[in-house]
Amino acid sequence: MATEIRSKLLKMFTEAQGGFLSGQKISEELGCSRTAVWKHIEELRNAGYELEAIRRKGYRITKIPNRISSNEISLGLKTEALGRRIHFEESVTSTQKIAHQLAYDGALEGTLIVAEEQTAGRGRLNRAWHSPMYTGVWMSLILRPNLPPAKAPQLTLLTAVAIAQAIEEVTSLRTDIKWPNDILINKKKTVGILTEMQAEADKINSVIIGMGINVNQELEHFPEELHSIATSLAIELGKPINRAELIQMILLKFENLYHSYLEHGFYPIKLLWESYAISIGKKIIARTITGTLEGTAKGITEDGVLMLEDDKGHISYIHSADIEIGKD
Amino acid sequence: MATEIRSKLLKMFTEAQGGFLSGQKISEELGCSRTAVWKHIEELRNAGYELEAIRRKGYRITKIPNRISSNEISLGLKTEALGRRIHFEESVTSTQKIAHQLAYDGALEGTLIVAEEQTAGRGRLNRAWHSPMYTGVWMSLILRPNLPPAKAPQLTLLTAVAIAQAIEEVTSLRTDIKWPNDILINKKKTVGILTEMQAEADKINSVIIGMGINVNQELEHFPEELHSIATSLAIELGKPINRAELIQMILLKFENLYHSYLEHGFYPIKLLWESYAISIGKKIIARTITGTLEGTAKGITEDGVLMLEDDKGHISYIHSADIEIGKD
Repeated sequence: MATEIRSKLLKMFTEAQGGFLSGQKISEELGCSRTAVWKHIEELRNAGYELEAIRRKGYRITKIPNRISSNEISLGLKTEALGRRIHFEESVTSTQKIAHQLAYDGALEGTLIVAEEQTAGRGRLNRAWHSPMYTGVWMSLILRPNLPPAKAPQLTLLTAVAIAQAIEEVTSLRTDIKWPNDILINKKKTVGILTEMQAEADKINSVIIGMGINVNQELEHFPEELHSIATSLAIELGKPINRAELIQMILLKFENLYHSYLEHGFYPIKLLWESYAISIGKKIIARTITGTLEGTAKGITEDGVLMLEDDKGHISYIHSADIEIGKD
Repeated sequence: MATEIRSKLLKMFTEAQGGFLSGQKISEELGCSRTAVWKHIEELRNAGYELEAIRRKGYRITKIPNRISSNEISLGLKTEALGRRIHFEESVTSTQKIAHQLAYDGALEGTLIVAEEQTAGRGRLNRAWHSPMYTGVWMSLILRPNLPPAKAPQLTLLTAVAIAQAIEEVTSLRTDIKWPNDILINKKKTVGILTEMQAEADKINSVIIGMGINVNQELEHFPEELHSIATSLAIELGKPINRAELIQMILLKFENLYHSYLEHGFYPIKLLWESYAISIGKKIIARTITGTLEGTAKGITEDGVLMLEDDKGHISYIHSADIEIGKD
């Protein structure tokens, strides 16, 4: 829906103070057909509004979606640098795209881009990430660590630990990390992480960490094909979560881990990561660009690289793959 | 100068067909003061135009700068993919910035961004690169190799070889490569290379190779402080060079080396690179982010990393530094 029409429509409902607005009146004020009015109402519903429709009376809003604001995230935020500058948007193509532009133009470390909706959210290898309005945490964090590009994968693992810790703190739900960049609850995907960077050949200029967290979706918010493999915190917990509070907690956990990482290196992060890792010791199938490997996941190296042992005891080092965890 | 005023002024001179235009007439047609007219004429001179000024007659253009066009680069280009799509601009902040945006939006491998002038050209570590109008080759090439980020420095060395080969082919001038990203002629800097990338943690999305080549500058085009350390091909050769032809040759040499690299790895590039390397076997000082090292440059590793041997025979591996070559 064009943002302008949505604003007009919401303004009319606000002025009606919970009362009904007739389709006729909406159609006149927006200057569109009755069919178009019906379409706009449906789009409001998709955006998380609940509306009652009664014949001859019209429509009224019965529930406003749980929105967040830049202020809500800032108020009570306990970090030093992360999230101290927030770019908040109602709807974007992808928060990564905006973050890339801001980073290129010199945005400071800790700059956070948050959107209520992504119309073209992306995960690893340019895969689509479903990011409907008012339901999830769709955000990108800009970091400027003084590191060579080869270290960037470690930040994916660090991010996974930060989000796992924050989810546990806010919801008490137990999460599993699936190497390299997914967080699962009850074996269903709840969080995706996309670590990207802008770098010179030998020096990182900026790391842009995209986080997609399914928070308040109900099952019907997910496309049919995801029902068996994806979930949200609200589905698992049985009640909605305050998204601003979750964002604050992620930023705080992240900052603590990040300071530790910059000071002491990857080893402490590795230990924490292993405590959440679901695949270690299990039979897995790893699909890489060059082929498919099967074996037992032995753990990760000091650099965050996955070690896979085959039947003959030969170890492969895997930098990048999709992992499928065996049944046993 | 505002592009609009420049166009108006050039149009007036074109209509005068080599004849004089009085300052009065220019001032009237542009709607500006006589002082402003004088300023605009000076700016044309800085942009490579030569103008004669005669009291009571006014100004006339005696020489139009040697410009290039997208067509000139395309006509006779012998490559398969590199330079097959050209974004040509009269003036940009930096070709790297435009290339970053195009790359993020999906520009194909081989897309080339060329500008006649950069107002904010950059080199390694965000240093300024002086890129005056109509004099040099200021361009950025987008590549999409299927490589891990750690391999990106090898592309800097490959680029240096391609440019050195092309300069030799077009001018017969002998060039020296100074690790990692400079090309010198008679010990003066003639070419700078900036390799940047957009990458996921474990996979390059795009490599953006910026090339700045001093081609047709006269000594007075360089800022005073660069006179003793920079030069141009025209200064060294004693006559101007056809820039479009040079660009074509660079793209052709680049494509050959790039295919060889993707097929056979870095080793063949390493051998070629060493044949141009000025620092190997010499005493050097290497200034890195963490400190300064002195010793003898022993060569580069299979990965393109510089090996420095100190007095005691200890070898340091240097991924990134500014190199100063000793006198002996």
